[in-house]
Amino acid sequence: MTDQSWTVYLSGEIHTDWRREIADGCAARGLPVVFTAPVTDHGASDDCGVEILGAEENKFWHDRKGAGVNALRTRTLIGKADIVVVRFGEKYKQWNAAFEAGYASALGKRLIIQHGPDHAHALKEVDEAAEAVAETPEQVVRLLTYAITGRL
Amino acid sequence: MTDQSWTVYLSGEIHTDWRREIADGCAARGLPVVFTAPVTDHGASDDCGVEILGAEENKFWHDRKGAGVNALRTRTLIGKADIVVVRFGEKYKQWNAAFEAGYASALGKRLIIQHGPDHAHALKEVDEAAEAVAETPEQVVRLLTYAITGRL
Amino acid sequence: MTDQSWTVYLSGEIHTDWRREIADGCAARGLPVVFTAPVTDHGASDDCGVEILGAEENKFWHDRKGAGVNALRTRTLIGKADIVVVRFGEKYKQWNAAFEAGYASALGKRLIIQHGPDHAHALKEVDEAAEAVAETPEQVVRLLTYAITGRL
Amino acid sequence: MTDQSWTVYLSGEIHTDWRREIADGCAARGLPVVFTAPVTDHGASDDCGVEILGAEENKFWHDRKGAGVNALRTRTLIGKADIVVVRFGEKYKQWNAAFEAGYASALGKRLIIQHGPDHAHALKEVDEAAEAVAETPEQVVRLLTYAITGRL
Amino acid sequence: MTDQSWTVYLSGEIHTDWRREIADGCAARGLPVVFTAPVTDHGASDDCGVEILGAEENKFWHDRKGAGVNALRTRTLIGKADIVVVRFGEKYKQWNAAFEAGYASALGKRLIIQHGPDHAHALKEVDEAAEAVAETPEQVVRLLTYAITGRL
Amino acid sequence: MTDQSWTVYLSGEIHTDWRREIADGCAARGLPVVFTAPVTDHGASDDCGVEILGAEENKFWHDRKGAGVNALRTRTLIGKADIVVVRFGEKYKQWNAAFEAGYASALGKRLIIQHGPDHAHALKEVDEAAEAVAETPEQVVRLLTYAITGRL
Amino acid sequence: MTDQSWTVYLSGEIHTDWRREIADGCAARGLPVVFTAPVTDHGASDDCGVEILGAEENKFWHDRKGAGVNALRTRTLIGKADIVVVRFGEKYKQWNAAFEAGYASALGKRLIIQHGPDHAHALKEVDEAAEAVAETPEQVVRLLTYAITGRL
Amino acid sequence: MTDQSWTVYLSGEIHTDWRREIADGCAARGLPVVFTAPVTDHGASDDCGVEILGAEENKFWHDRKGAGVNALRTRTLIGKADIVVVRFGEKYKQWNAAFEAGYASALGKRLIIQHGPDHAHALKEVDEAAEAVAETPEQVVRLLTYAITGRL
Repeated sequence: MTDQSWTVYLSGEIHTDWRREIADGCAARGLPVVFTAPVTDHGASDDCGVEILGAEENKFWHDRKGAGVNALRTRTLIGKADIVVVRFGEKYKQWNAAFEAGYASALGKRLIIQHGPDHAHALKEVDEAAEAVAETPEQVVRLLTYAITGRL
Repeated sequence: MTDQSWTVYLSGEIHTDWRREIADGCAARGLPVVFTAPVTDHGASDDCGVEILGAEENKFWHDRKGAGVNALRTRTLIGKADIVVVRFGEKYKQWNAAFEAGYASALGKRLIIQHGPDHAHALKEVDEAAEAVAETPEQVVRLLTYAITGRL
Repeated sequence: MTDQSWTVYLSGEIHTDWRREIADGCAARGLPVVFTAPVTDHGASDDCGVEILGAEENKFWHDRKGAGVNALRTRTLIGKADIVVVRFGEKYKQWNAAFEAGYASALGKRLIIQHGPDHAHALKEVDEAAEAVAETPEQVVRLLTYAITGRL
Repeated sequence: MTDQSWTVYLSGEIHTDWRREIADGCAARGLPVVFTAPVTDHGASDDCGVEILGAEENKFWHDRKGAGVNALRTRTLIGKADIVVVRFGEKYKQWNAAFEAGYASALGKRLIIQHGPDHAHALKEVDEAAEAVAETPEQVVRLLTYAITGRL
Repeated sequence: MTDQSWTVYLSGEIHTDWRREIADGCAARGLPVVFTAPVTDHGASDDCGVEILGAEENKFWHDRKGAGVNALRTRTLIGKADIVVVRFGEKYKQWNAAFEAGYASALGKRLIIQHGPDHAHALKEVDEAAEAVAETPEQVVRLLTYAITGRL
Repeated sequence: MTDQSWTVYLSGEIHTDWRREIADGCAARGLPVVFTAPVTDHGASDDCGVEILGAEENKFWHDRKGAGVNALRTRTLIGKADIVVVRFGEKYKQWNAAFEAGYASALGKRLIIQHGPDHAHALKEVDEAAEAVAETPEQVVRLLTYAITGRL
Repeated sequence: MTDQSWTVYLSGEIHTDWRREIADGCAARGLPVVFTAPVTDHGASDDCGVEILGAEENKFWHDRKGAGVNALRTRTLIGKADIVVVRFGEKYKQWNAAFEAGYASALGKRLIIQHGPDHAHALKEVDEAAEAVAETPEQVVRLLTYAITGRL
Repeated sequence: MTDQSWTVYLSGEIHTDWRREIADGCAARGLPVVFTAPVTDHGASDDCGVEILGAEENKFWHDRKGAGVNALRTRTLIGKADIVVVRFGEKYKQWNAAFEAGYASALGKRLIIQHGPDHAHALKEVDEAAEAVAETPEQVVRLLTYAITGRL
């Protein structure tokens, strides 16, 4: 029983270091995982469209251009993922995180949702679509360890 | 060129009368549309799981049971829809609305997103996945009129 | 918001009257449901292959012929269903019920599993794949009522 | 005609050494096969949910949490498999094995079912969905040898 | 348990009256079946391309044009069928019948193959892909009766 | 052999009366066809976006808004079609016609391409993807007659 | 522009050396192709079922067992192929070749059909579904060379 | 966060050196991209069919043969691509480019359309289906850089 390589897309909150925590935790355990993610540089993510394709006067189209450019990356990487982890942080609307959870769910991806207990009621439909709901990045590391190696 | 019957799922905000506005507007124009929607009675939507399947002490599982029961309805109706309209209101997290937008998008449904201008930046990725972004229910009526009959 | 017609496939146990209970309960509430099911006449289900296509000396192929003929019906009807209800009774192996639950799940059908509390541990993976787990046919009637009409 | 690498998921019974027998038999013949499997440590499989994500008072939700965590692994690995082998042992309900057989069948995977002759009648619909029905692990090794190398 | 309407595509041999036999047999039993078929007028089927779209000097392209025009009909009707029945007669190559069997199989349609015992060995792979193998049109009528009504 | 109802989407050139010719020809023959089409009012098609959703200073986004609104209609109707007919007229770039041909082809729709002989070389890849290539609307009527009724 | 590795499944006639010709021709040109094929040892192909899984008195089930075991290989390899080449030889019914052509076509595989001119009329529907129709293995080598490297 | 290897298909105009510009630009930045493309030798692309499979007197079938042979390459490579870039040049009908854009869109591929401002109105529906619309090959390089590495 060899452990195959897995691809895990880390969606959601971009203001804390949770992706690094998960990647480091999995590396420390020697797991064969490739992690992917949306662009987590907030400024680049907002301005990539106009930076590359030219300025827009209207903020709505400034945003649209950027969203399209980001989607080149995110839709491709979600499509290639085995597991999609979506973290909801304490702040902001985070509608894009919920959108990616729905998108991944309809593609038949395995879902892990990670958030603090305060958000549990507001996220109940999202949680229901997931195989596992974690409260901390460390739990995500343990979930991936178990899923990939079969060992607790 | 006969106008075929269309099925339109109205997702999102449940605290105002926007679904009725759209349905009435389309009825007044004689459009051949069947509208479907999630359960919009907030209390029923929260408690359907435990009402039907038995009480839970733990609020997390109370919510989970309800979310599953609601999904019996919503996943079926989204799957049958030609167009999914998702409205984001002024208040609340509304993560379920964003989840359903992502779910519908990955199923290849046509999407109309409706929200006020204040939410435009936070919803930019969701908007980008949509064929049209409207600000008012009346605009949604006009979009459906045009899509179904070809007349402005 | 019109209630559309739904198709519900009733899979599993064939030695009690549970399908009739559900159909009667839904009819009493005026639900627009078409119910479908595998053949529930045990003898016919066992012998349909050899009855129609000719006798077999070897019991294995006697069974195989019948299983193929039954699959003409069951695979078609599961494919057309919106919701698949699978009931596990008290007795027998009922592997076919579990097979149909897995089959429906991979097709992306909504699942309701119905069984008594004694089977909960043995059915935990099957239950996890379902939107709802009921203990009685009457609960299934209430689940369908809510899913179809949105009313508790 | 090069022999490509194949991925074979070994589903079902976890109380005997059959997976090792098959893996050893294929290794002895030098077959290019990657074997995958659900977690076969019964205790870990039962308790993984609460071990990682926190204890549950209610046994039903204890089981549900574990089933979700196991599904992170099993749904991913079945989705990646070329062939799914499902073994039914002498004991227990083994509904999960039948569920995985149905799940794999609807995904269009090739199926080998392996069980003793006593279970033939109860498994007739499951067997009918399979390309091959074997009685012993050694036969499975021979089936894989032939499928992969074309040599008896 | 209402009997839904079924669609059955009758593929294969066009020189005997077998389609009429099956349609009459099902009508006599009052089955809710819509039968569809390729064009069974041999001349029309050969010449439809050049009749409608203009003559060809080269026989190969004469045939190609006709095959394309016939495919407008056959691919559409196979795509809409619940069950595909393929009959192999005594004479001719009938490669188109085998092609349509393979095409329907990969689309996940239920298959009934009908042929005399002389062809059994040559058709073994085709038969293996089918849920049922019949020798006579009357058996096909009985198979459809059972699949649709559940009664022998 | 009943003739089922067919849905035919008429894509492409909007400056001549070819859709009406085809619809009239099929009506005269009593064919059970529902015809659908993109919006063929050039002005409405160009301005629907800004008319309904508000003006844009930038022509590019004026066009984008309109293209999205038109796509609500066209993607839905192509998705529901059995056959897609694409006509290339004498003038203009008509890239949208070619785009819809490619879109329909990848969805597995049956394709009829209609154009004059002057465009044959430039359209060779589009023609190759089609079941039939016609030169006149009348030929399209005859193709539909044959496909639907089996009669020349 | 790097040339990616391609997988080509060689279906059909098993009594001449055509697969070797194609493989040698492609090797001589240094093409990055992996060739796969059904089992071409006629005896093994006929008897693999009973050899591995036990004898059958009834020839029909002898054949069925073998067909299932062969399908473990063929369905997997067709599913992994980029291009499926199907050769029809001079003799025998070769229904399995036509079945595999239809199966590959419905899976959306690219098809090359190879046969002598005598079979052109009988194979017209099969040819119509193919991207290319060749008369000789050498032409197949040239087609693969062009498809993979872009050079004539 | 490792950067995975991406596959990018470069569709469209074949009379300028834009593919090389993009490939060189990405190589200079060290991006892990495999580029694929249709055959860009105009003569080979026109004549490949008759060169390999034999001459045709009728120009229409000369073209058809070539289009089929080219499709062996293009359909395979588009199917394997993560991103499809389609460039519309200044001249010619370029219907094949628009067809490939539609084909890629319906397959769910990410799309970048590249053209000069003069074509913006005529390409508005094609642009609407794309994640990004660029004016120069250099912008395409920057889009790929950002999509693959997340860095502007």
